[in-house]
Amino acid sequence: MKVYHAPGTRSIRILWLFEELGLPYELETFTLGSPDMRADEYLKIHPMGRVPALDDGEVTIFESGAIVEYVLAKYGDGALVPDQASPDFAAYLQWLHYAEGMLMPPVNTIVVEKFFLSEEQRNQVNIDRATKLLTRMLGAVEQRLADRDYLAGEFSGADIMSGHATIVADRLGADTSDKPNVVAYIARLKDRPALQAAYAAAE
Amino acid sequence: MKVYHAPGTRSIRILWLFEELGLPYELETFTLGSPDMRADEYLKIHPMGRVPALDDGEVTIFESGAIVEYVLAKYGDGALVPDQASPDFAAYLQWLHYAEGMLMPPVNTIVVEKFFLSEEQRNQVNIDRATKLLTRMLGAVEQRLADRDYLAGEFSGADIMSGHATIVADRLGADTSDKPNVVAYIARLKDRPALQAAYAAAE
Repeated sequence: MKVYHAPGTRSIRILWLFEELGLPYELETFTLGSPDMRADEYLKIHPMGRVPALDDGEVTIFESGAIVEYVLAKYGDGALVPDQASPDFAAYLQWLHYAEGMLMPPVNTIVVEKFFLSEEQRNQVNIDRATKLLTRMLGAVEQRLADRDYLAGEFSGADIMSGHATIVADRLGADTSDKPNVVAYIARLKDRPALQAAYAAAE
Repeated sequence: MKVYHAPGTRSIRILWLFEELGLPYELETFTLGSPDMRADEYLKIHPMGRVPALDDGEVTIFESGAIVEYVLAKYGDGALVPDQASPDFAAYLQWLHYAEGMLMPPVNTIVVEKFFLSEEQRNQVNIDRATKLLTRMLGAVEQRLADRDYLAGEFSGADIMSGHATIVADRLGADTSDKPNVVAYIARLKDRPALQAAYAAAE
C-alpha cells in the first residue's frame, strides 16, 4: 500500500498506524504546498490535493480517520479496535471522531493564521480565540484520562487520531499547565516505538 | 435510546439516522445555549455540553459520526453501510469523515462569526475566507456526484454526515451556482421522507 504523505501534516497518523500494525507501506512524500499536490494525477486520488491519502490497488481513500478505519477493518485482524461487544467500542468511535470534530478545527485556524497567512493578513484575535477553544477541548481528554492510560481501553485507533491531535494542540500552544493527564498521555504516546518509527520515516 | 438534541445543530443527523432505520427514539431537546446543556448531569454525558449525544442504557456516546457508526454497527443489521467486500466501503468511510474533516470547519467559523459573536467582534474577512473555502470543499462533492446519486453507492450513513454538511453549507452561503450535482443532491436528500420526518421531529 502506498501512503501519500507530507511532513508536518495529519499523514503521520497513517505512518503511525502502519508501524503499530507492523504492516509494510510505501511512502510518496510531498513537500507541503508543492505543486505536485495539485497535479492532475494526484487530484484523481485526492480532489482537494491534501494528504494523507492511501492507494490500496483497486481502492484509493482519503481522510485520515477513514484510512484508519479502512486499514483496521481490512488488514487489522482485530488489532487496535475494541470488540463490538465491549463497552470500549462506543468510546473508541467517539474518540476516533473527536479528533476532527473537536480538536482539529481550532488547530486548523491556528495553523492557517501562523503559517499560511502573511503578517498583514494575520489576526491575533483569531489565534487567541482558537487557542482558548483548543485548551477547552483538551479538557475532555484530561477528564477521560483520569483513570486510564488510553482513550478506549487498550491503545487503539482512537489514540492515533485524538492522540495525534493532542500532541499537535500542545505543540501549537494550547495550555496544558493544569492538565497532568494530558501531559502524561503525550509522553506515553511519544514513548511508543511505533510513533518514533513513524516520525523517523516521516521526514 | 435517547437522543440529546438541539434545533439547528448537527443532532438532526441522528434523528435522520433513526428515521431512516425506522427505529424508535426518545428526544431530549435543548435550546441551543441553554444552561441545561452545561448542567452537571448533562456534562456527565457530554463533557463539553454539546449535542448530539446518545444514551443507550449502559453506553453513552457523543460525536455525530461516532453515533452514526455505533448505531449502524449495533442496530443497523447491515443497513446504510456498504459491505466491507464492496468497493463502496472505502468511499463510505471517506465521505463519512469528509463531513467533519473538510466541510464543517469552515461551517463552524461562519456560524460563530454570524450567530455567536457580537457585531463589534464579527470579522467579515473570516466569514469571506470561510465561505470561499467551503465553496471549494463542495467541489469534491460536486465531482463525486457526477455519475451517482449518493456518495457511496446506495444512500448510506455517509450521506447523513456529508449530505447534512452540504445542506448546511448551501444554507450558509457557499456558492453552488456552478455545482448542479450538489444542487440536485440537496433536493434529493430533502425529498427523503426520513429527513422530512427528522425535521418535523426536530423543532
